[in-house]
Amino acid sequence: MVSHMEIDDTTAGHLQELRRGTVVLACLLSLRVPDYGYALLERLETLGFATDAGTLYPLLRRLEKQGFLSSSWNTDDARPRKFYQTGAAGLALAQTLLADWSAITESIRTLTSGDES
Amino acid sequence: MVSHMEIDDTTAGHLQELRRGTVVLACLLSLRVPDYGYALLERLETLGFATDAGTLYPLLRRLEKQGFLSSSWNTDDARPRKFYQTGAAGLALAQTLLADWSAITESIRTLTSGDES
Repeated sequence: MVSHMEIDDTTAGHLQELRRGTVVLACLLSLRVPDYGYALLERLETLGFATDAGTLYPLLRRLEKQGFLSSSWNTDDARPRKFYQTGAAGLALAQTLLADWSAITESIRTLTSGDES
Repeated sequence: MVSHMEIDDTTAGHLQELRRGTVVLACLLSLRVPDYGYALLERLETLGFATDAGTLYPLLRRLEKQGFLSSSWNTDDARPRKFYQTGAAGLALAQTLLADWSAITESIRTLTSGDES
């Protein structure tokens, strides 16, 4: 639906704000299987989590620093790549965010539930 | 679930980020029926959209400036109150955000769908 509309900058800003916090959740869920930055970026884009390298890479480093992701270098290929993986704390955070997401969805449903009556 | 857990500052920050964009949507949906700031604040709190006056009031002014809300003074009571109401552009924005919310929810479901298999 969104893609069929002409989106002005203000609307785009509100959409971006709505999505910002969800990229963290998407990273934590995706990286239960280890992956490197660029592959994750492509996966998230396919899933519709619009982000870019300039946002995602610092976010991955931040999540690692916060103890939610761990990383290791894979040197099997000609080009060594840093693989990230969600750790125990990251899984717990993902569960917390998922529970909150469900709660927000329920609240939004309450706000729109009168529409059909 | 969230309320039963001890939430550290880092987790709280991620939760706040997840919820930030949804307050705009909650305001737009709520204010289809005109209301004043403090009553809206209480309504949102009841629904679980944790926000505070210092965040909500500037947000209402910003949404009015952006043309999504209109306002008028109600002077029937001893204390005049500024009532906000969602306008046509605000309703359109709400529909856009709702569609996006559904799309994100679907993407999150895709990321978690392998969990049971």
